[in-house]
Amino acid sequence: MKLGDLAGELNCELRGPPETEIDGVAGIEEATATQLTFVSNPKYYSKIPSTRAGAIVVSRDAPDTGLPTLLSDNPYLAFARAIPLFYRPPSVTPGIHPTAIIAETAQLGENHSIGAHAVIGDGVRMGRNAVIYPNVVIYPHTRIGDDFVAHSNAVVREHCRLGHRIILQNGAVIGGDGFGFAPRADGSYFKMVQSGVVILEDDVEVGANACIDRGTVGQTRIGKGTKVDNLVQIGHGSTLGSHNILASQTGLAGTTTIGNHVTLAGQVGVAGHLKIGDRVVATAQTGIGRDVAPGSVVSGSPEMDTTLWKRNYILMHRFPELVKTVKRLQKELAELRKSLIGR
Amino acid sequence: MKLGDLAGELNCELRGPPETEIDGVAGIEEATATQLTFVSNPKYYSKIPSTRAGAIVVSRDAPDTGLPTLLSDNPYLAFARAIPLFYRPPSVTPGIHPTAIIAETAQLGENHSIGAHAVIGDGVRMGRNAVIYPNVVIYPHTRIGDDFVAHSNAVVREHCRLGHRIILQNGAVIGGDGFGFAPRADGSYFKMVQSGVVILEDDVEVGANACIDRGTVGQTRIGKGTKVDNLVQIGHGSTLGSHNILASQTGLAGTTTIGNHVTLAGQVGVAGHLKIGDRVVATAQTGIGRDVAPGSVVSGSPEMDTTLWKRNYILMHRFPELVKTVKRLQKELAELRKSLIGR
Amino acid sequence: MKLGDLAGELNCELRGPPETEIDGVAGIEEATATQLTFVSNPKYYSKIPSTRAGAIVVSRDAPDTGLPTLLSDNPYLAFARAIPLFYRPPSVTPGIHPTAIIAETAQLGENHSIGAHAVIGDGVRMGRNAVIYPNVVIYPHTRIGDDFVAHSNAVVREHCRLGHRIILQNGAVIGGDGFGFAPRADGSYFKMVQSGVVILEDDVEVGANACIDRGTVGQTRIGKGTKVDNLVQIGHGSTLGSHNILASQTGLAGTTTIGNHVTLAGQVGVAGHLKIGDRVVATAQTGIGRDVAPGSVVSGSPEMDTTLWKRNYILMHRFPELVKTVKRLQKELAELRKSLIGR
Repeated sequence: MKLGDLAGELNCELRGPPETEIDGVAGIEEATATQLTFVSNPKYYSKIPSTRAGAIVVSRDAPDTGLPTLLSDNPYLAFARAIPLFYRPPSVTPGIHPTAIIAETAQLGENHSIGAHAVIGDGVRMGRNAVIYPNVVIYPHTRIGDDFVAHSNAVVREHCRLGHRIILQNGAVIGGDGFGFAPRADGSYFKMVQSGVVILEDDVEVGANACIDRGTVGQTRIGKGTKVDNLVQIGHGSTLGSHNILASQTGLAGTTTIGNHVTLAGQVGVAGHLKIGDRVVATAQTGIGRDVAPGSVVSGSPEMDTTLWKRNYILMHRFPELVKTVKRLQKELAELRKSLIGR
Repeated sequence: MKLGDLAGELNCELRGPPETEIDGVAGIEEATATQLTFVSNPKYYSKIPSTRAGAIVVSRDAPDTGLPTLLSDNPYLAFARAIPLFYRPPSVTPGIHPTAIIAETAQLGENHSIGAHAVIGDGVRMGRNAVIYPNVVIYPHTRIGDDFVAHSNAVVREHCRLGHRIILQNGAVIGGDGFGFAPRADGSYFKMVQSGVVILEDDVEVGANACIDRGTVGQTRIGKGTKVDNLVQIGHGSTLGSHNILASQTGLAGTTTIGNHVTLAGQVGVAGHLKIGDRVVATAQTGIGRDVAPGSVVSGSPEMDTTLWKRNYILMHRFPELVKTVKRLQKELAELRKSLIGR
Repeated sequence: MKLGDLAGELNCELRGPPETEIDGVAGIEEATATQLTFVSNPKYYSKIPSTRAGAIVVSRDAPDTGLPTLLSDNPYLAFARAIPLFYRPPSVTPGIHPTAIIAETAQLGENHSIGAHAVIGDGVRMGRNAVIYPNVVIYPHTRIGDDFVAHSNAVVREHCRLGHRIILQNGAVIGGDGFGFAPRADGSYFKMVQSGVVILEDDVEVGANACIDRGTVGQTRIGKGTKVDNLVQIGHGSTLGSHNILASQTGLAGTTTIGNHVTLAGQVGVAGHLKIGDRVVATAQTGIGRDVAPGSVVSGSPEMDTTLWKRNYILMHRFPELVKTVKRLQKELAELRKSLIGR
């Protein structure tokens, strides 16, 4: 593909020869002479002089690259749009594989691909263009919108409702039983029937082996465009707003309310019955045990303001020294007092 | 259902009109005029005046609710018992789906439902009333009691032994190989054959995508009534007592011994070869690196008494201030000494 | 089996009667009179006098055991080699189960066992001796070496390349989509097509429900002999060297570079774009947020040298006392100053 055409396709301004031939995309350190790369974070501008890339996407305020360059308001997004121009995943076979089991009462939209051994239960209703890979199980009475993609071994449990353009990676479990047990007087536990559902709004993606539990009574709801990474746990009755990012191995205990545009980095934990405001950022391994105000950036377990946490961390290295200093001060003060007033 | 009948069913004392019609259950904030709700934790009594519920379950010592009320010694348990009166999960089809593969040497008890594409291996023996959802795999030579429920993609590995009323959520893996490798002199690892088993005693439930590893030699044992949440890891050779709660993403390293009535909140980690006593509570993200005495409540990583941990956390916020104070003290002492004795 | 023959088989020196009959192996506390046990860590020598084992493997510098004894340079490895002499997992059925779906363009090596409902996609090429358990899915165009073992519900995604002697435990996902999303100006996210692959070099084992994501562009690579435990997350574009140990629930964010012979204990987190040097050890729950030099031993979140971390932890218990001491010092100094110089 010619760089000039690529600039047009990605809606970028071209600096350099439009006839430059590009046949792929790659990271700044791996790119070869016929590949397009990018730098988005100014921290990595220093890597530009040593790249072997044939062309690069940067923002308009980047320094001169010395390479055929595409200028973009959002170089990361432009690069993201370039990837599928050079890569196409294996095609899927239209229709229903003869070994798939589709309940007679299930309704599938047109233009679907249902893989081998997939199972679709009673009363399921699904929109157009579904791609269901082998061994996926859709329990009875779920509702699923258009353009559904479910990778092998993903599961959607009974009665759940999924919007349009939902993507489930392999082994994702939507609507498993919430962890609800009522203690009896003897200390044993009575299983609470988990009668609620999970609702995934449009454009939600759920990572491999991630779990989103159904509510005990009522809903667990994931808002539009929220992305859930591998091995994340979302407890029963949680309500998440739109366009949140939950990175891998993060866990929400249950009945957690999360606003919009929140980022929870990896291995974050959130206790139950809390409210996390809009645009909160929690850095990796943060443990959140109380409400977090909108716009906060928090770290640590239990969480605190990230600036304080960083300062504490630096000071922590001086903790042994501090203890020594205090001991010395005690001694000096005692000596001074003694030498001056005899006690 | 009439409230009077509901009171009888749940063994509650009724305060209010027995003919009140109830058609469902819901949380205190979501309940509507024909729904039953509950408050168990006195912390939430303040929510009662604003609920729109048609009736409420509370304990005998709760303040007057101003609503048709069911009084119970255990309102949470009473509410739990009410749920299935208004909700019934989709029924399962009795018998063996024609696409299930059952080894000739497997013995199934009566009244089973074996779903599509399920696989049951050689020599498996299973009790009555098993409900096995599609795509479950039971490896050879397992023994399973009555009333077994295995959701789609759950796996029970060879030779494991499961008691009565076991529930496996989707993707749970019982008896995967323990993580046992013997280092060779050159730093590479020799895989140890994992020849042990997992034993689940009666009434154990295992969450979605949770993993309980078989022993290297000998057993991994989960005691009666213990509940294991999603994405929990239980390492090889661990021994858990009865009626424990292991919340999501908790991990036990291996050869861990846990008593009875223990609660490990979410994302707790326990190192190997430790003993956790009866009734221990570890709060979320606790990292346990040594034995914990019965009845302890611990937090932090590494763990400490929760009271100390909370105090430390409050003090931690004053750490920068403390460092400044010590510096100032040093300076003041030096000045005082100088002004008094000239050095 | 006679102990003399066992000594020969394990290449150990025998101290004791060669005709001792051994019919199994077990841990030091569980072993019975006809079983072989071992002690490797000198910490556990104290358990030897009370064992009921029939024989024991120890190192040459262990104290006298009072039992028929096998002396080994590596008693743990010798014990590991003894296990399969007394245990053989259920045999697998040679050939292809009639319900498995093998694409016409897939090429399987000789001597394979393909279980019920397994699915092998277009263009897959696989070596000799593959053992594929029921419900495994191999996506199109993967390349897999000899002696492959994939347990039920494991998945290998399109285009991934696996070396020889790879073992996948149940539910492991190799090559799921990386968590790559480019933010748009309105705060919503654009899904980046994940066009890269995962490469597993020879002798890699991946635990149950662990996830290794494909690169966005380029590779995620796991070096020879590296062992990945259950529920581990390896983010897209990470590069791991040889003979590393990643214990359960550890997570690597993405584009992480790890050397050789590294040990990450359970629940460790590593942020993106970092370099972890050879032979680094991170203790459980460590949170790594910057590069770690070869040979370091680190703990804490954020990580610090383990020696410092331990000292801090001990001092932490004295933090409340330290705060009190500083307050008292302030008061004493003020009083002293006042009594001496009147202010």
